[in-house]
Formats: sequence, structure tokens, C-alpha cells
Amino acid sequence: MPSYKAPVKDMLFLLNDVIGIEKYANLSGFANASPDLVEAVLEEAGKFCEDVLAPINYSGDQQGCTRHSDGSVTTPDGFKQAYKAYCEAGWTLLNQPEEFGGQGLPHVVGFPVEEFRMAANQAFSMYPGLTQAAISAILAKGSEEQKAKYAPKMISGEWGGTMNLTEPHCGTDLGLIRTRAEPQADGSYAITGTKIFISSGEHDLTENIIHLVLAKTPGAPDSSKGISLFIVPKFFVNDDGSLGARNRVSCGSIEHKMGIHANATCVMNYDGAIGWMVGEENKGLAAMFIMMNAARLGTGIQGLSQASVAYQNAVAYAMDRRQGRALTGPADPQEKADPLFVHPDVRRMLMDGKALVEGLRALAVWGALQVDLSHVAETEEERQFADDLISLLTPVIKGYGTDKGYEVATNAQQVYGGHGYIEEWGMSQFVRDARITMIYEGANGVQAMDLVGRKLAHNGGRAIQTLFGMIDAEVAEAKSNVALADFAGRLEKAANDLKAATMWFMQNGMANPNNIGAGAHHYMHIMGHVALGLMWLRMISVAQAKLDAGEGDAAFYNAKLVTARHFAERMLPDTGALRRKIEAGSEAMMALEPELFAA
Amino acid sequence: MPSYKAPVKDMLFLLNDVIGIEKYANLSGFANASPDLVEAVLEEAGKFCEDVLAPINYSGDQQGCTRHSDGSVTTPDGFKQAYKAYCEAGWTLLNQPEEFGGQGLPHVVGFPVEEFRMAANQAFSMYPGLTQAAISAILAKGSEEQKAKYAPKMISGEWGGTMNLTEPHCGTDLGLIRTRAEPQADGSYAITGTKIFISSGEHDLTENIIHLVLAKTPGAPDSSKGISLFIVPKFFVNDDGSLGARNRVSCGSIEHKMGIHANATCVMNYDGAIGWMVGEENKGLAAMFIMMNAARLGTGIQGLSQASVAYQNAVAYAMDRRQGRALTGPADPQEKADPLFVHPDVRRMLMDGKALVEGLRALAVWGALQVDLSHVAETEEERQFADDLISLLTPVIKGYGTDKGYEVATNAQQVYGGHGYIEEWGMSQFVRDARITMIYEGANGVQAMDLVGRKLAHNGGRAIQTLFGMIDAEVAEAKSNVALADFAGRLEKAANDLKAATMWFMQNGMANPNNIGAGAHHYMHIMGHVALGLMWLRMISVAQAKLDAGEGDAAFYNAKLVTARHFAERMLPDTGALRRKIEAGSEAMMALEPELFAA
Repeated sequence: MPSYKAPVKDMLFLLNDVIGIEKYANLSGFANASPDLVEAVLEEAGKFCEDVLAPINYSGDQQGCTRHSDGSVTTPDGFKQAYKAYCEAGWTLLNQPEEFGGQGLPHVVGFPVEEFRMAANQAFSMYPGLTQAAISAILAKGSEEQKAKYAPKMISGEWGGTMNLTEPHCGTDLGLIRTRAEPQADGSYAITGTKIFISSGEHDLTENIIHLVLAKTPGAPDSSKGISLFIVPKFFVNDDGSLGARNRVSCGSIEHKMGIHANATCVMNYDGAIGWMVGEENKGLAAMFIMMNAARLGTGIQGLSQASVAYQNAVAYAMDRRQGRALTGPADPQEKADPLFVHPDVRRMLMDGKALVEGLRALAVWGALQVDLSHVAETEEERQFADDLISLLTPVIKGYGTDKGYEVATNAQQVYGGHGYIEEWGMSQFVRDARITMIYEGANGVQAMDLVGRKLAHNGGRAIQTLFGMIDAEVAEAKSNVALADFAGRLEKAANDLKAATMWFMQNGMANPNNIGAGAHHYMHIMGHVALGLMWLRMISVAQAKLDAGEGDAAFYNAKLVTARHFAERMLPDTGALRRKIEAGSEAMMALEPELFAA
Repeated sequence: MPSYKAPVKDMLFLLNDVIGIEKYANLSGFANASPDLVEAVLEEAGKFCEDVLAPINYSGDQQGCTRHSDGSVTTPDGFKQAYKAYCEAGWTLLNQPEEFGGQGLPHVVGFPVEEFRMAANQAFSMYPGLTQAAISAILAKGSEEQKAKYAPKMISGEWGGTMNLTEPHCGTDLGLIRTRAEPQADGSYAITGTKIFISSGEHDLTENIIHLVLAKTPGAPDSSKGISLFIVPKFFVNDDGSLGARNRVSCGSIEHKMGIHANATCVMNYDGAIGWMVGEENKGLAAMFIMMNAARLGTGIQGLSQASVAYQNAVAYAMDRRQGRALTGPADPQEKADPLFVHPDVRRMLMDGKALVEGLRALAVWGALQVDLSHVAETEEERQFADDLISLLTPVIKGYGTDKGYEVATNAQQVYGGHGYIEEWGMSQFVRDARITMIYEGANGVQAMDLVGRKLAHNGGRAIQTLFGMIDAEVAEAKSNVALADFAGRLEKAANDLKAATMWFMQNGMANPNNIGAGAHHYMHIMGHVALGLMWLRMISVAQAKLDAGEGDAAFYNAKLVTARHFAERMLPDTGALRRKIEAGSEAMMALEPELFAA
């Protein structure tokens, strides 16, 4: 059975030393986030995740959810109690606005808690996670009445929330949606249609579930410009807040999936269910994207989370399991064999894991800060700067983060040898759970296209220029520090590959947009490497300064320096190869008739 | 539900046009392998795999094996009938020696059938697959009496076979084995111990199972030099060939695994079970390696197989599923959306799959031919040449082949979007089944170390020089052909990276063997890319000659040219990055104390 230890120390290093959260104390929400409070929050969250959520992760996977003949769904043993404890401890309130009962803490404090929660139990986390996404859409686009009616009980966790986008014939291409919304005399709508892959669509954790549903009103344009968003509660809510009759929405079946077994993935049938429009007619997709952007960042963190917990367990196994001898001679001659840790190829997988997990964590925390700054920074310029950066990097955090998360989880499983393939050791679950993160909330190919097809050119390329400017400045400064110069030089080389690839797109995309599509995935990975490189540069700058000053835990800071070097040596070389792949263009890739693929 | 179509045409292209099997007609065994017979064998095998084995692949995964309280194991519905039909059709006989009832066909004809069988149903294939491995050890090291007693009924498929190496505390490091073999007065041995992860260890397909078991005799050296190999039949075999009493060997439990659910992975308990030594005392590991080498090639083919079937289904899905529009404008304006095939990033995954599947298939067929030639080529020089090459490339076919197989299967699943994650679509099974191939028969890190630590330096590096000589000659020739020159130039560049990495190991391995270990995995992948590049060069040389001559299916040959170009554009650039990683050495990788990995 695997275990989980929340990486509180690493997170505090990022928040206090790398980002320097104290610097932002004058901003709205940050006043509540004193270093002491943040440390207390992280320690309590870590403890909760370790003690309550992690122990029901494996059993939840084995048992899965059960749908009963009446359409009700039971979550695995222990989930109800854990959810109750989760709400009672106030974990649903963290980032929510104080006017609806939340604690109003910044995202940069909430995201670490999300990482811990998802690492401890991804399937569980999706219940409050989807609720959180639904809340954000209601708060952003709902009427005052809708906010007052739904937000407080969703924020308290008494009610759940869902996102209903996908239908059997349409996933990515939401313009194909067929679910209809017929206006009723009282201003409500009767919703009819079938939605699939609805995470947390039905369960026994909350007394009500507030579904956010995309549907088309009569006569709406037959494209993504004709989609509206509706609130469809499972139980109607009376004016006094009490629950009324059951709405005509039900769970038709739950899917048998590769992983996240403990989260109910539902087919939801809407049979004239009554709903209320959120925001403007035909503007539903924009409202949904508010949820999607948060969900995409969250999904990136899921990738990091599964990598983190799988990596931790592989480290423990490699310290414990003895097999073979070090190439340089027995490390423990008194034992019959050395620990796996002595083998360079095991080290390779673990160091890759360490470099990626800690790098992705830094990127996620930095990303969360940009989300905050895009809302509450003092000047319009600062808000725009942050918004540009997080808009650009969101598909990278999602796409690169989950690709790498799966890779790290797979390698961690590999460290276990044959035992990694046996379910009871738990490594299989991490891989199976991580696999969905590359698919949902926009498959990673969609992320790559969002990056190169939308984000890159937006506002005349302002965001990418902002990123380049930031990297150039930090690289130039680091190169003047002898302890950082080697790393900075390697990052500069990788950033040059990113610049060259960007330029290549500009020069070759107009003539044939397939040239951009064919390189999109590679480009997303170059940018991921460069973004992680920048994070590692920041981490080692702090670590080196601490070492120079003789402050803090020298071994911890030294480990950061070594891990950054590993990242530079074993990851950054990829950017040159990726650039060459992009520059190959789309000709060969697009040349063959589909019939010739059959072989 | 996925389907399977055996790639007979591609295989015949390799056998007839690329390898030119007719050239070898004068060699032992090849006389039976006329082009007509080979075509008939492949078509019949393809049909059997498509019609009998593929239809029970998904159901077998869902149902799994069942162990009963008496220790017996039932395979999933349909497996018994399929196995009976498999034996009756004579598929177990293909490569086996005629003196024991086999058909004596060369491996180069048997390997294609293995690919089809494993692609259609990997879990099923492991039952005859393990039997085949056990037969090869008995034929190589057994006494005449043992061969006569066991081989015929194993070859006919009436009896199964297994390999018993792993114990709870030892997998890779077989020197740690604790299973004891006490000599008995009659020359037999009483075997006592526990073996785990025994594929096909107990099942209902055959009336008897012949276990090959590694154990230690009293006073044997406490290392891998003290291991002997024993035949331990489930039921004793009387002198007249009839079955006698049950031996004291039983299945204690079966594992709950990530995949290959339809193959029983058993804990086998030996409680003074009677066995007979195979070959010499304390030479068991060498005997086992005869099985292992064949098994490693077979495992590489499993990686290819899962890639092949997953890729096929992804191609079909991408042709069928409509979502979004081509970047260059609607491809099917009369439809509401275009097929997935128009999207470059979907193409990328499918073209990668095509380039890898067809390249790995060519490498596997070439490898099978080397196995044959190492035994039956006319001169000692030719036999040694073939043996050098296949010894060198076996860990590459296994390690690189299964790493890439998993990658292709994962990408094929990705093409399905959300549906890829739902078990009933079958793509999850391909990924889950492919995952084991990176682990068993020596985890891929062990393959990498076998390659760089053993195979590379063997006989003063003769094998790698042979490989370089072959590549240099073929590249030089191809560069003089304008149609092949570009590809040949790219392959030359990749081969230069392989040469440089080899040189780096020679220069830096002596001082610190960890420098070799730290680059072993990367080196295995460079060699895989170069080996596939060589195969692609051979394929396009033939394809171009056919096109020039106006012979055959021009579209098929053109597809080979395009796919080779894709391989050169999207895979070969990796060798430069891999080389840089190797040249980084082991310093950072080995620097940290294990305690500092916890984060």
C-alpha cells in the first residue's frame, strides 16, 4: 500500500523564499495570508490529506462507485465521512469570497492545498473540484439572485456542482451540441438532452447537486456561437433555501474507466429538466471558459500531484528494496545486495521525477500567483502583465504538466519492477489516474493548439514577448553570478530554441496553418522546458543566496542546485530536437491519404 | 469494441522484398519456407488471430482468471476452446524441430505469426509463449531422455510450460534465490520454496504443466553461480507417457494486475516437489538465459504488437469520428465537422505510430532472420556475424521496442479523447497490457545495462563495429542515389551520435562505471532510433526501386517513402539530445543522498 506525505517544506520554500508572498501583503486578500497563517494552513491541509484522504485512495479505486437501479450513486466506503470532515474543517472555503462565507485567501495559498488533496486522492478531489469550478462560473456570470441562492451552500460544500459540456457525438467541438433549452412562461427553460463524461454527476456526498449545462435555445446559431449556459439543480431550491421537488435530471449510467474509479463519471439525462440561464443567451461558451481555465490549471496540478505521490513512493521503495550491487562495488557489503538507489538507471528515473515534480510545483505556484495578480495587482499594467503570462502558460501547465506527470508516474511504477504492475502496490493506480489528466478539460493536443493558434498571436504576440523579456532579463542577471552562469547559459540556449520556433511559426504559419498544427505539441513541450528552466533558475538563485548567507537548511538548498543541474543536463537538451521537429513542417505529416495508414 | 486486422501485406513486403527470404532457400529449414507457403502461413495465421483470438481479448480482460479454493485456475470464457483450436490447427508446431513433431520452419516465419497472435490477444499468447520458452531450454540443455519425455507433448501443445525465476525478495538479482533442491536417492531432487510472478503457472488449458525452476542445491555457492535448473512437472509422467500422481507444487494465489488479466500470474508453492536437474549443477542461469533471450525478443514483439493493434484502431477512429474543422478550411463542407484525420496533431500521433510500428516490425523480422542465420548460415563467419548482431540488438528490440510500444499505445488511446479512457472502447487494455512489456523478462533498465555493460564490450566491441560497418556501407551506397540521399544523410547524422556516445563510454566508463550506467537508457534509445533508421533505409531502397521499375502497388511504396521521411523528421532528431544527455555523465545524477529525495 502506498503512502503520502505532503511536501509542506518544499511548498513553504516556494511561497516564502522564491515568490516571497510577504511582498504582496498590501494586495486584497493577501493581508490574510501572513507567513504564519500560510504555514498553519499548509500543515493542517497536509495532515488532513495524509490522514483522511490518502488512506481511502487505494480502497476507493478497488471498490469504485455503484449506480443503483433508481439512478442513485454510492461512493466508495469512507468517502462520505471524509467529505463531511473536509467540509467541517472548512477546506471548501479557502479561496472563496468572504461575502458568500468563504475565507478569501489568495489562489497562491489555495493551489498548494489542491496539490496535496489531489496527490492524496484524485478521485475524491474531483467532487469538491468540480463544485469549485461551478461556483466560479456562477460568481462570474450569474445574477445576484443566482449567486445568493446557490453560492453559499456550494461554498460550504453542502451542495455539489458539475460541468455538463460533452455529448456522445461532441467533445472538443462544442458547436455540435444538441441539448435543447425551451423557454418557459416563467422565464425558466426546459432542458432536454444527454450529456456524457459528467464527473461527479451523481453521488451521495451532498444533499443537492447544481449542474451547469450547455444547451441551445430555439433558433440559436448552429455553431459554438449558439450555446447558452444553464443552472439545473438536482433538487429545486425554495426561496427560503430549503430543498423542493426533484428536477427531471438523472444519472443513466456510470462509466467503467481505466482509473479515477472512485469518482462517478455519469451519463446525465435531461428530460425537460428545469433550468435557469446564466449570463447572456448564446454566450454560454465564454461563461464555460471561465470554469475551463480554472479547471485546466487544476488539471495541470493533477498531473503534478500524481507525479509527486508516485515519485515519493518510488523513492521509498528504492531505499528499501535491495537488488544487485553498485557498479562501483558493493555499497553495503554486510548485506547480500545494495538498495536500488545505487543503480544509475534507477537514479535517472528518480532524479527526473524530482526535477519535474519540484519544477512543475514551482510553475503551478507561480501560475496561481499570476491568477491572483491578474485580479488584484495595484496597477492595470501589472494586472495585464500577470494576465498575459497566465493566459499563455495555462495550456502549458495543463498539457506539458500532465504529459510529464504521466511520464513521472510511469517511471515511478518502473522503479518497482514486477511489483509495480500488481495493483495492491498502488503504483498502477497512480499511472491509471494520471492518464485521464492528459485527456479531460481539453485533450493535450487541444491545449497545444490553444497555445500556438490562439495565445501566441493574441494582442500581436504581447504575452510571448513579455515572457521572452522576463527570461532575457533574468538570464542576463544570472550570467553575471558565477554560481548560476552555467545553468543560465543552458536556459538561454533553450529559450533561443523557443524563440526560433516562434519565429518559424510566424514565417511559415500564414502560408499553411498546418505548419503550426504539426509543431504545436513540440512547441508546447519546448515552452514547458523553458518555463521549468526559469523556475529552476529562480529556485537556485534563492538557494545559492541562502547558502552564501549561511542561512537555513544547507542540504536542502544544495539538493536544489544538484537537481537544477540534472534538469539542465537531462531535460533542456530536448529543446533542440523539438525545434528541429517543428522546422520539419507539415508536408510529410499531412501527405498520406487516410486509407494508406492501414497496414 | 476494438478489432484487429493482421498486417499480412506489410509482413510479406518485409519477407519477400526487403529481406528476400528466397535468397536463403539453400539453408536448413528455409527449403520448407517457399514464398507460397509463407504467404499461406501468414494468411491462415492472420485469419485465426482475427477470428478466434481477437474476439476474446477484451472479454478476457474484463473477466480475468479465477483461482479456486483447491488451487486450480480457470481461464476466461472461450480461452479453452481457442487454445484447443490453436493446437489443432498446428500453430504450436511452426518453429519446432521436426524430430519432435514440429514443422521446422525458420524463426523468420514464426516471428510474424507471434506478432499477429500477441496483437490479437497478448494474455492468451503468453500460454503458448511460455511453453515455447520452456521447450527451448529443454531442447538446449536437457538430456535425451528429458527431451523425449517432455518435448513432444509440449510441442503439440498438450502440455504447457513455465519459467520459475522470481521470488518475493529477488527479481533481477537471481543470486539471492532461496528455493532449495535436496538430492534424493533416485537422482531426483525435492524442491522447496516460493516463486512469484509465474505467468501461466496454473490454468485449465492443458492436462499437464512442465515447470522449469531455478533452485539451489546444498552447499552451492551463495551467488548466481550456485543456481541449478530443474524440470518439475505438475503431474508426474510415467514411462509410457501417461500421467501419474500429482506433484507437490501448487498455485497459492493469483495476482491482481494492471493488465494481461486473462493470463494467470501465479504464486507457486513448491513443498518438496520432485524435480529433475536440467543440464549441469550450478549452471542453471546459463540454461535459463537460453529461454530469456528468446523471451526478450518475444517481449519486444509484444511491445510492437500492442502498438500495432492500438494504432490500427486509432486510425479507424480518426477516420470515423468527426470533430472540428481542418485548419486549412472545411474538408467535408457538407458535413457538420471533419474527421479527426484532418487535425495535424492527430496525424502526428498516427504518423509516429505508423513509423514506429512498421519500423519495429522490420527490425523484429530482421532480428528473427539473424536468429536463424546464427544457427544455419553456411559459414562460421556468417553465423558469427548474425550472432553478434542479434546479441547486440536483443536488448534494444526488447527495451526500445517496448518503450516505444507503450508510447504508441498511449498516443493511440489519446486519439480517442475521452472515449479512450472508457474500458469498453478497448484502448485502455492495450495500454495496460503494453505496460508489462517494459517490466518483465528484465526491466528496460536491465536491458539498457545488458546493452552497454555486457554486449557493447563483448569480444572487444566486435558486434558494435559490425553494426557500424553495416550502417556505413549502406549509408554510403544510399547517398549516391538521389532519391535516398536525404534520408541517408539524416541516418548518418544519427549514427554519428551513436558512434560519439559509444566513444564517450569508452573514454569515461573506466574511470567511473556510473558514467555508463547513467547513460545506458539514453544509449539504448539512440541505438533503437539508428536501428529503425537502417530498417527504414532498407524499406525505402526497395520501395524506390519498385517505383522506378513501375512494379507493384505504387501507393503502398509511396507511403513507405513518406513514412520514412516522417521518421527522419520526427524521431531521428532525438539522437542529438540523447547524446548530450549521455555526455553529461553521472555526477549530478549520483550526487544526492537518498534522504534528500523526499520532498
